[in-house]
Amino acid sequence: MRKFVVDRVRSILSRSLQLQHRPQPRLLSPLPPALAFHSSAMASYPSDSSFPVTLHNLNPKVLECEYAVRGEIVTLAQKLQQELQASSGSHPFNEIIYCNIGNPQSLGQQPITFFREVLALCDHPAILDKSETQGLFSADAIERAWQILDQIPGRATGAYSHSQGIKGLRDTIAAGIEARDGFPADPNDIFLTDGASPAVHMMMQLLLRSEKDGILCPIPQYPLYSASIALHGGTLVPYYLNEATGWGLEIPELKNQLETAKSKGINVRALAVINPGNPTGQVLSEENQRDVVKFCKEEGLVLLADEVYQENVYVPEKKFHSFKKVSRSMGYGEDDISLVSFQSVSKGYYGECGKRGGYMEVTGFSADVREQIYKVASVNLCSNISGQILASLVMSPPKVGDESYESYIAERDGILSSLARRAKTLEEAFNKLEGVTCNKAEGAMYLFPRIHLPEKAIKAAEAAKKAPDAFYCQRLLNATGVVVVPGSGFRQVPGTWHFRCTILPQEDKIPAIVNGLTEFHQKFMDEFRD
Amino acid sequence: MRKFVVDRVRSILSRSLQLQHRPQPRLLSPLPPALAFHSSAMASYPSDSSFPVTLHNLNPKVLECEYAVRGEIVTLAQKLQQELQASSGSHPFNEIIYCNIGNPQSLGQQPITFFREVLALCDHPAILDKSETQGLFSADAIERAWQILDQIPGRATGAYSHSQGIKGLRDTIAAGIEARDGFPADPNDIFLTDGASPAVHMMMQLLLRSEKDGILCPIPQYPLYSASIALHGGTLVPYYLNEATGWGLEIPELKNQLETAKSKGINVRALAVINPGNPTGQVLSEENQRDVVKFCKEEGLVLLADEVYQENVYVPEKKFHSFKKVSRSMGYGEDDISLVSFQSVSKGYYGECGKRGGYMEVTGFSADVREQIYKVASVNLCSNISGQILASLVMSPPKVGDESYESYIAERDGILSSLARRAKTLEEAFNKLEGVTCNKAEGAMYLFPRIHLPEKAIKAAEAAKKAPDAFYCQRLLNATGVVVVPGSGFRQVPGTWHFRCTILPQEDKIPAIVNGLTEFHQKFMDEFRD
Repeated sequence: MRKFVVDRVRSILSRSLQLQHRPQPRLLSPLPPALAFHSSAMASYPSDSSFPVTLHNLNPKVLECEYAVRGEIVTLAQKLQQELQASSGSHPFNEIIYCNIGNPQSLGQQPITFFREVLALCDHPAILDKSETQGLFSADAIERAWQILDQIPGRATGAYSHSQGIKGLRDTIAAGIEARDGFPADPNDIFLTDGASPAVHMMMQLLLRSEKDGILCPIPQYPLYSASIALHGGTLVPYYLNEATGWGLEIPELKNQLETAKSKGINVRALAVINPGNPTGQVLSEENQRDVVKFCKEEGLVLLADEVYQENVYVPEKKFHSFKKVSRSMGYGEDDISLVSFQSVSKGYYGECGKRGGYMEVTGFSADVREQIYKVASVNLCSNISGQILASLVMSPPKVGDESYESYIAERDGILSSLARRAKTLEEAFNKLEGVTCNKAEGAMYLFPRIHLPEKAIKAAEAAKKAPDAFYCQRLLNATGVVVVPGSGFRQVPGTWHFRCTILPQEDKIPAIVNGLTEFHQKFMDEFRD
Repeated sequence: MRKFVVDRVRSILSRSLQLQHRPQPRLLSPLPPALAFHSSAMASYPSDSSFPVTLHNLNPKVLECEYAVRGEIVTLAQKLQQELQASSGSHPFNEIIYCNIGNPQSLGQQPITFFREVLALCDHPAILDKSETQGLFSADAIERAWQILDQIPGRATGAYSHSQGIKGLRDTIAAGIEARDGFPADPNDIFLTDGASPAVHMMMQLLLRSEKDGILCPIPQYPLYSASIALHGGTLVPYYLNEATGWGLEIPELKNQLETAKSKGINVRALAVINPGNPTGQVLSEENQRDVVKFCKEEGLVLLADEVYQENVYVPEKKFHSFKKVSRSMGYGEDDISLVSFQSVSKGYYGECGKRGGYMEVTGFSADVREQIYKVASVNLCSNISGQILASLVMSPPKVGDESYESYIAERDGILSSLARRAKTLEEAFNKLEGVTCNKAEGAMYLFPRIHLPEKAIKAAEAAKKAPDAFYCQRLLNATGVVVVPGSGFRQVPGTWHFRCTILPQEDKIPAIVNGLTEFHQKFMDEFRD
């Protein structure tokens, strides 16, 4: 572990703006080499060049950035899909099943009716008082649309809003946070964003001055973190989750990594925590969270709490607690801890990825720093209004007595209980495979099984110039049509190999996926077993 | 002019990552000092601090970034608006009229019905085959919604799309570009984005490696350019538009500024052109555009063509020509010039700012650089789907024979002809003011009158620690409720003073605005006339 940090710090400190000084991508690196990123769309363009922009003179931070969940494996999947369309039977499977990304509706999950009714009515308010509308939309959706319109100055759903988002929607979201946590929330603390990703970028932009500023990130991590830290020129300071204790977040490890980074001259600015975990699926205990809050307070770190999976908890013994609730319940207020909580409409039971809605709740920053956050938010004017409306809806869904309430609950619980079943089935299937161990998906949308690859497979990967887990995932894709992401895209303890698989395929597809996977794995092991 | 560049270059080259080395904000600087940015929402938070993040340790690029169209003047306007709401009659006006930002629907412009019908149907496709829907929506909107759904894999309007946007929508947009230009367009060149701003950021991120990389930008400019260059750590290389020739873009000035920058060690990577102009409202002639294309080709510069006002041309003698059309008509192809064209759903006659839709058409880059653009786009997964759909609609509106065609044309032409009248009325009003000269708004949504301020007014501004034009604009706001943006927010020839005023208030409000403005100006001059 230490070696990993030392290497990383050394590579960053020696990095220069001249491309020739960049560390060369290493074979078998735990990170896929930046230059190996491919996209199918680009095939028809010349790569030699008298162009003013080349790989040698573009921003090296862009070259360093990696984003595996849409990387090489997806490009291969798209190619196979085209081949299947051109000639069915050209591969030993009938379809590509995208388990690479938490994109529920792409795999058949249906949207929550009430949310879509309100969005449609806000998109075309002219129909709100037409008689036919009563027959098409539920009464509470019509009422909610009116309420929302009244919260928008001039009912102008096509206008830029306040840079933090429409005030009335922020009021609703703050009320939803209060109801969730039992502690006050201030609408002026809410910044509505186009999904959680731009919010994370905004905080990185604020905090990272140079390669000497670091962010403590879990390993394995969702690659948005490594990508945004790379793009903003900072240093990712890894802390390793303990796979042996169900991906435990252990305070001694945090302290150890913080000290190591400090000794290398890195100013660690913040701690990122993803709870429920992505790609690891664990749900932190409240006691553990208290220790994390205490650590951040003692060390003067901003706590970046990625809580986008707060609705996705599948085991009765675990419950989601927001870091804000935990810190407030410890008696910590505005002056004690700088805390940013990220939420998204892309996850939960709603899975509205395409709407690009989300928010961050920003607490414990001084007025002048908040002004700077506001300024950065205002450069892009505002997030999209449909996403803003949806963010208010997920924080304030139908209530008992509303016309939609029962159908809403049925839709919500149907999705969540099905996700819980799928998680369990896939987890059990992975654990039955030779040399594979897989922790429970207590929450989120992913399993992250470890594959103990035979030495012969590792050598074959080396010969193919691939990380061993990427080699495995590519073989899996070619054999079954199932797309999963190599663990190296999320980083992992060096020498261990994993992949991330979403739990999102519809239930009727799960048996075939399990069968395909099992058969593939057995053949793979037969080929490479030492 | 040269002095300005030299000062800027010197300040940038001497800049360090330590805040104490930053050039102190100067009084009367053509740029409002970064630290003077205010937001009303922040008033209740402590500004002293034991917080881990302070102005002294946050990213200095964030501090340097300025965004005047949502800056200090808007904060004052929001304060006055609250005071008016609390006690009507507390000010010498009844309402705040926001002429600071191109946000048409916030001032009462109605959305185009067809576009909103299609968006609503795509948001809630479950109603598409209901009989009541026929009575509420036009037949071509229903048909278009079906077409769009069929273009979305699995009809999943709530799924992340391809990182460049839904392929079928890109096909539609490419066809729209072909119809506009008479030259082929490739859907693989289209990157759909949440408005044009993120697209501009993306290009800056790609091109800017350090302060030694520069972008040639018009002065006056839309402050997205200065803000995004600051945030990405590059250098804005100014070229001055010639106010005397109707804000002419003159090639000798481009050459001169390029040479000056080069002599200071700046690598100029790109030329940004805003056509029609913001804040200056000029529409470039095709001949002028040819010279610009030739200049970029000869100098090896990327041409960043901000063409978001392409539908907003108000004078019969001028016509919008895309830079892509111009370069193709000169015989320049993929191998000759790197060209990025930005388009947005926020402008035009539709003015759908809140939808955050837009695209960039990226041509003339090598395959490996395009992969890097794709990678950066994929880190934020995709732009919002409603914005994507709307971008396809504005590039492919109803056609002759469609049920909506006539009402669509009536709505469109009603808005555009009204904008033309408003531009003319306001231009004439400004030109009647003592010491004010105002060029024609040939296009876009703004007038940028020059105010020849008396020495006494400049001294009073100095005493109030304000730029003279900011002083004037603040007085105007306090007297009339009209919000305009000081020219210093856009940069201008040092020693000249302007403000930007949108042409967007509804026509029935224009006479009162003109009267208020005229009366204010006369009193202002009476007070300060030398």
